[in-house]
Amino acid sequence: MAKPLKIGIAGLGTVGGGVLQILRRNADLLETRCGRPVVVTAVSARSRGKDRGADLSGLRWYDDAAALAHDPEVDVVCELIGGSDGVAKALVETALANGRHVVTANKALLARHGTALALAAESRGLTLAYEAAVAGGIPVIKGLREGLAANRVREVHGILNGTCNYILTEMRTTGRDFADVLADAQRLGYAEADPGFDIDGVDAAHKLAILTAVAFGCQVDFDAVHVEGIRHISSLDIQYADELGYRIRLLAIGRRTERGIEQRVHPCMVPVGSPIGATDGVFNAVVADGDFVDKVVLVGRGAGAGPTASAVVADLLDIAQGRRTPTFGVPAERLVPLPASPIDSRRGRYYLRLMVVDRPGVIADVAALLRDHNVSMEAFLQRGRAPGEAVPVVLTTHETDEAAMQRALAQIGALDTVLEPPRLIRIEDF
Amino acid sequence: MAKPLKIGIAGLGTVGGGVLQILRRNADLLETRCGRPVVVTAVSARSRGKDRGADLSGLRWYDDAAALAHDPEVDVVCELIGGSDGVAKALVETALANGRHVVTANKALLARHGTALALAAESRGLTLAYEAAVAGGIPVIKGLREGLAANRVREVHGILNGTCNYILTEMRTTGRDFADVLADAQRLGYAEADPGFDIDGVDAAHKLAILTAVAFGCQVDFDAVHVEGIRHISSLDIQYADELGYRIRLLAIGRRTERGIEQRVHPCMVPVGSPIGATDGVFNAVVADGDFVDKVVLVGRGAGAGPTASAVVADLLDIAQGRRTPTFGVPAERLVPLPASPIDSRRGRYYLRLMVVDRPGVIADVAALLRDHNVSMEAFLQRGRAPGEAVPVVLTTHETDEAAMQRALAQIGALDTVLEPPRLIRIEDF
Repeated sequence: MAKPLKIGIAGLGTVGGGVLQILRRNADLLETRCGRPVVVTAVSARSRGKDRGADLSGLRWYDDAAALAHDPEVDVVCELIGGSDGVAKALVETALANGRHVVTANKALLARHGTALALAAESRGLTLAYEAAVAGGIPVIKGLREGLAANRVREVHGILNGTCNYILTEMRTTGRDFADVLADAQRLGYAEADPGFDIDGVDAAHKLAILTAVAFGCQVDFDAVHVEGIRHISSLDIQYADELGYRIRLLAIGRRTERGIEQRVHPCMVPVGSPIGATDGVFNAVVADGDFVDKVVLVGRGAGAGPTASAVVADLLDIAQGRRTPTFGVPAERLVPLPASPIDSRRGRYYLRLMVVDRPGVIADVAALLRDHNVSMEAFLQRGRAPGEAVPVVLTTHETDEAAMQRALAQIGALDTVLEPPRLIRIEDF
Repeated sequence: MAKPLKIGIAGLGTVGGGVLQILRRNADLLETRCGRPVVVTAVSARSRGKDRGADLSGLRWYDDAAALAHDPEVDVVCELIGGSDGVAKALVETALANGRHVVTANKALLARHGTALALAAESRGLTLAYEAAVAGGIPVIKGLREGLAANRVREVHGILNGTCNYILTEMRTTGRDFADVLADAQRLGYAEADPGFDIDGVDAAHKLAILTAVAFGCQVDFDAVHVEGIRHISSLDIQYADELGYRIRLLAIGRRTERGIEQRVHPCMVPVGSPIGATDGVFNAVVADGDFVDKVVLVGRGAGAGPTASAVVADLLDIAQGRRTPTFGVPAERLVPLPASPIDSRRGRYYLRLMVVDRPGVIADVAALLRDHNVSMEAFLQRGRAPGEAVPVVLTTHETDEAAMQRALAQIGALDTVLEPPRLIRIEDF
């Protein structure tokens, strides 16, 4: 019998509990697959007394997570605490300093400190694995970093936050408003009591920063991600999207352009029939576009105990079988700081919704401002009449520069016939 | 500079040419990723004089592919010749016997001799890699074998033959007949001059046999695959499928049941909105269902020089970086011969189309026969009337046994009011 791989788990929440469960329920299978047992020897969590529905007998308990890194019976520390700094960061640093491999599901930590932690791990010949940090159970990191490694990646984009996708899907299928659907999602446990992290796009941005580093072999640069959330999406916009043949998604896009690397998270209109447009509900989807393989699409569950723990255990099996890959696809000391292309440099199409006073001449003013900024209109919709009152007007543009669009928008928003802040949604025709 | 990994390529057709191109065009990138150069040193193909649009200068040429296995400057033999026996098999066996790793795109070889070749490779500590053999550029083998390795897989299914999917998609979008669309596909190079391998389901069956072994950790058992092709699919069936909310796909299904492992390739009706139903044209799609991760969907290009070569080079990079996994996920000597569940044991729903004489009582006879075999009808469609002449009648059943369905079908087909052989298409409600 080969030597077991010994795991210390820090954090026994949903994911930690799931990891314990997989390692127990599928123990025989995993041992057959990797030729050695993978066993949990020690755990750490905040309150020892809490009933977790998991049998912890026979496991060493540590109140202080960092102590896991000193336990001689721990080969791999699983960091499942979360948070970009504090306990989680200290634990990972201590573990690596003490020669322990690290498996984590912590996207905030990797997005903020990924490059430094990769250097720390690789300089000691250790693995820092994080499949669970991006798109839950979907093997996107392995798929991109190894499966598509023959390719120069041109773009990676996807739905990386299931909460937002659930909310947007519910809004479309029920016609209800954002606030209403969010409250429901909170009641059902699909959204946190403090939902900002999800609905303001921060969570997706963390994941995108990691994905971009893997895709392009560059340093993780979270600060370069342009982030917008979905609070401003109205059911009116969702109806118009339907009518125009689009779905609204909170999209994360990493794109290599001549001006540098674009990293942006914001609501998008995407064609109904595209893989992203067809991904409804809590699911995640990632599309990678490589110079030889073309587009590869991966879809699955981006959260939840089972899927996330599945990814954590996949990382453990890589370690158990001695499979090693540089953290972000190329050795950490060769990760370059690629120039960031700011959102102002985006070129693409736009959807614009205005609430205007229904009277002659208003559209002429809007059209003139667009023309002045060299923005070419593609389609224009005004349904229903209410003379003298507020009516929605929707238009889409041909491909144009974000900077020009924003300048036009500022002037359009200042017209006294435009009653609410204009709503702009970028269109991506994948 | 680390030692280069030296490649010998046997077969310089579409895929071989693509591999040469990737290794040249992305040489710097690949060297950065894996820390050593990956270089082609020798090649072998049938006719040396042929212009392949690739510069072969500086490469050793062998007329006899097996000679690659003896070249001291070859670490890995890429077998890109094809065919389940003959030259390809001899080359792979010789290469492994001579301590060379093997990368192949040969599904027929693996489907027929996979278990024995895996044993030969693993007993010598060598890699036998074959990502390109299943679903072209999509990293399904890696995804399943490593990405989802934490899971007990319940089922794997997918579209594994792009030619059939192209033909079925064209039939639907143009309303044209099978023969007509096939002729077009041959003209466009999407189908071979001898199309049987694709349209009779053999190619998909080869791939399924491999996928099943990886999914369930069992010996490769191609002979246990039930195979039907798409020659009998008519544009009438495609229209009815549309009407019922389905798409017709040539599906490959590997399923773990209480009675054993189901392996079957045949036309299916699948819901329009399912990932498989949404995969049109030449694309491949694979869905794996694991006990913790739930369903993961992978979609991309299943054929063509770029995508297939992308998968071959991914395998080369695994070897270059020393990443090793048992050939079929569990060590070859532990692959078990799982019992096969024959097609007769299938349980599911069915679509049935009959061409009947339009006169009273015909449907009553059909309904009585179904009842006699305990098959419960779900829906029934008869459009248009032509008293005394042949009209199509379509019905779908509730879940029933294949054996019962086939018995009923034999009797229904024997009715003198049923004018053509009944058309049965299985329904899978993923």
